[in-house]
Amino acid sequence: MTRVFPDRAAIAAVAKTLPGVDSAAIAAAQGRDAELTKPAGALARLEDCVRHLAGWQRRAVPRLDAVTILIFAGNHGVTVRGVSAYPSEVTVQMVANFERGGAAINQLARLHGAHLSVTPLDLATPTADFTVAPAMDEAAFLDAINRGAAAVPAQADLLILGEMGIGNTTAAAAVAAALYGGDAASWVGPGTGVAGSALIAKQCAVDTALALHKQVMADDPLQALCCVGGRELAALFGAVLTARQRGMPVLLDGFVVGAAASVLDRLVPGGLDHCLAGHVSAEPGHRRLLQHIGKQPLLDLGMRLGEGSGAAVALGVLKAAVACHTGMATFSEASVSNRS
Amino acid sequence: MTRVFPDRAAIAAVAKTLPGVDSAAIAAAQGRDAELTKPAGALARLEDCVRHLAGWQRRAVPRLDAVTILIFAGNHGVTVRGVSAYPSEVTVQMVANFERGGAAINQLARLHGAHLSVTPLDLATPTADFTVAPAMDEAAFLDAINRGAAAVPAQADLLILGEMGIGNTTAAAAVAAALYGGDAASWVGPGTGVAGSALIAKQCAVDTALALHKQVMADDPLQALCCVGGRELAALFGAVLTARQRGMPVLLDGFVVGAAASVLDRLVPGGLDHCLAGHVSAEPGHRRLLQHIGKQPLLDLGMRLGEGSGAAVALGVLKAAVACHTGMATFSEASVSNRS
Repeated sequence: MTRVFPDRAAIAAVAKTLPGVDSAAIAAAQGRDAELTKPAGALARLEDCVRHLAGWQRRAVPRLDAVTILIFAGNHGVTVRGVSAYPSEVTVQMVANFERGGAAINQLARLHGAHLSVTPLDLATPTADFTVAPAMDEAAFLDAINRGAAAVPAQADLLILGEMGIGNTTAAAAVAAALYGGDAASWVGPGTGVAGSALIAKQCAVDTALALHKQVMADDPLQALCCVGGRELAALFGAVLTARQRGMPVLLDGFVVGAAASVLDRLVPGGLDHCLAGHVSAEPGHRRLLQHIGKQPLLDLGMRLGEGSGAAVALGVLKAAVACHTGMATFSEASVSNRS
Repeated sequence: MTRVFPDRAAIAAVAKTLPGVDSAAIAAAQGRDAELTKPAGALARLEDCVRHLAGWQRRAVPRLDAVTILIFAGNHGVTVRGVSAYPSEVTVQMVANFERGGAAINQLARLHGAHLSVTPLDLATPTADFTVAPAMDEAAFLDAINRGAAAVPAQADLLILGEMGIGNTTAAAAVAAALYGGDAASWVGPGTGVAGSALIAKQCAVDTALALHKQVMADDPLQALCCVGGRELAALFGAVLTARQRGMPVLLDGFVVGAAASVLDRLVPGGLDHCLAGHVSAEPGHRRLLQHIGKQPLLDLGMRLGEGSGAAVALGVLKAAVACHTGMATFSEASVSNRS
């Protein structure tokens, strides 16, 4: 595998020269939209989505024919702290379930004709328990970022990012706290469904990790990802950065994907301009995180499954938006009177 | 055409004997859901939707193979008061656009494989200007209700209700005010996009109508529909009542559909139990109306087009819900460990 990011300097170099949006494509999409047989603005967020896709696809009429869903899976040493309702072996079991087509994301990918690709990241070797040591050493960290980058297809109309990893809402809470401040209580939630003493253990793990790595993480988003993140979070960061390099629009899923992507937001202002927020999950930290990155979610359905599932449901909204923009008649084609 | 509702007594008789939900089907769907490879409750509103569809379809495993979208179109005498940004001829022009496949709802129906049926209601003969007389006489009112009832298919997995009618957010605001109280300012919004003096004219029209018909509408939801509604609102009422008679789940669209359906809510407590709210529109009265009928919308995307378009976008969420429920593996099938 070609390693596009052999070191952190390579990441920094790419982050300094991120391509922007195609304003001419946006203007063309907006011009067509004004001619369609509906009151101006009546499709609201659907019209916003069309402009977003047009601008990043660099096409006046955007498409959603080739949609790829990438799922990254990792295991977490911090699970020894009793932070999850499920045992760590569920990560590898769920990867097998993805491969056999039995998970929620398989049904959603099939419904929408999206391509699903699953990347398990050294599941037999969990990251270190980050309450006592950095989650990853430099080699493991860069390897995960590069595997995320390598999973991004050369071309796609849209990329959906998802994840699986028992313990990874604990890592996401720690990363979010390191990036945006606040204590564990501000960012930790029930995840797969912990409560009571397990929820307190989860908060303690995050507060302990924040204190332990405070110096090394200060003002360094990549160090936050390395010290208190995890392999799938590092891979997600590599994927969101690579998608941006290629001018590929991304639909973000829930809290874990959001926390990993936010590393790019902290590295470069506007680094997530190519991303839409598919949904806001039930995990309370996710709503807070979306406010920090300035994204309004398309859906708010209380979902908290991960796997890219919230974004995959939101793909239906994007498909509806593109179908209307592409297929509707104009006022003149339909001989409909415009505003009096 | 057989008139199932020859008079108001026939409506009252049906409203007294509405069938309920199938609790055994709901329990069976819930039982299956608990076995699927995801944390309990992680699909949240999607799981709620599955239970709703199971209960009203009377099937443990609900389907969305046969979805029918009904659009009713009507013209409104109150448009002489300058309440709309568009001329009345747009109603018939948009019906032609529906028939040629050029409107937003056509694209959404095609995207989801739903059957679309459009019923224009005497468009050449607008209802009376309800600021000076009842919108409909008894014959026209019953005719519209019966045409709504007749449009409901004998069987469908889901019915989506939509409408088209220049001036009909004015009628919807007047109906909502008559049903739930409050003055015009509480219920009137921009509709297709009126502002300034036109918005004031719209409020004046509603306040004038409420004062004129106050006595005859008092505590009589059907009189509200007849005096300040319109043909498409009456047809929507006939359709939502008939769907309930047949135990057919309904996905409501925006403010106009909601106002028409609310007549059944006021006639019979729980009369809209078979209905889901597809979305909340940008029309401010809609959010208020949903609170009155106790429905939480699936989508909140600022849409304000009508035509059933908001509900048709929400159909994608229901399809996602059913796809997950139907296709996911159980913990035992996938050999995934459940909670530790």
